[in-house]
Amino acid sequence: MAHIDLQNDYPGIRGPMAFHPQTAKPLNDLAEVLLRDDNNTLTRGERELIATYVSSLNDCFFCQNVHGGLAQHYFQCDTSFIDAVKIDFNTSAVSGKMKALLSIAASVQQGGKRVTAGQIEAAKEQGATDKEIHDTVLIAASFCMFNRYVDGLATWAPEDKTYYIERAKQRAEEGYAGYDASK
Amino acid sequence: MAHIDLQNDYPGIRGPMAFHPQTAKPLNDLAEVLLRDDNNTLTRGERELIATYVSSLNDCFFCQNVHGGLAQHYFQCDTSFIDAVKIDFNTSAVSGKMKALLSIAASVQQGGKRVTAGQIEAAKEQGATDKEIHDTVLIAASFCMFNRYVDGLATWAPEDKTYYIERAKQRAEEGYAGYDASK
Repeated sequence: MAHIDLQNDYPGIRGPMAFHPQTAKPLNDLAEVLLRDDNNTLTRGERELIATYVSSLNDCFFCQNVHGGLAQHYFQCDTSFIDAVKIDFNTSAVSGKMKALLSIAASVQQGGKRVTAGQIEAAKEQGATDKEIHDTVLIAASFCMFNRYVDGLATWAPEDKTYYIERAKQRAEEGYAGYDASK
Repeated sequence: MAHIDLQNDYPGIRGPMAFHPQTAKPLNDLAEVLLRDDNNTLTRGERELIATYVSSLNDCFFCQNVHGGLAQHYFQCDTSFIDAVKIDFNTSAVSGKMKALLSIAASVQQGGKRVTAGQIEAAKEQGATDKEIHDTVLIAASFCMFNRYVDGLATWAPEDKTYYIERAKQRAEEGYAGYDASK
């Protein structure tokens, strides 16, 4: 049971978003630009994977499965690919650039000052642009918010992981902007 | 020097916000609703104080001084009041309700799951509403994002604390929505 009466029984972030649509609007607008905007050299799948990885580090069951489902949808891969990234991205099948960016994301999850000049240098050596590094930092930072919003209010989450995978296609099509938490 | 070329020399969050206005817009819209909206039973000063305290816990110099300056402006108090909250809010002059909410904010800063049913109960006993608890969690969560955005990109910050106090009045009047990072 959530810590407060959300006046609805939607799972995860949908509960507080329906409870307070005034803040849901900018939160969803942020997710739309960061994760879905096509004017980006990181694919939607790569951005959802960063979100998934940070949510996993924050131990947020709802977010890591929602965004893991989306990453899986975009990559057209098995769950085992997503799980491998969570367990150890360095031995996973992602690109060298993604490994460098996931390393930066992991540092951001611990705290902004944990990001080192060496990590930035390594990302640039792998071809990462300033914009890609910017987006990685902000995606990681924003999921340190989303994850805390979801778990700080003790929202509930469906335990069956297929729930998230089945919903991913619809979410990918509809996007985040104008998101209706009741659906 | 920032980790990436922000193409401007604005301090703190103003640098990346000017670098990428597309994400600055929802970030500022979120701050406006959370920290400034008058349809809220927490005062603007109380909300800025929660933001200041979390930024202090995250050791973000820029954010804790920007929002500390704003809290000081709204409370019409000395810096010593803000400093006392940062050092130990339990012995500071804030209300019992604020102490309970700051305790929740401190847990959110560590991680969403750190918030306990006992902390929620204590806040309710001090008269906190569900909406006030919701806002406290989201303010704390959002500053775990803002702080990481500012420090994860290694932005610079003016060292002189009077800079922040002098700018607070203008920021309080103009608000966050439609924020121009160049000013």
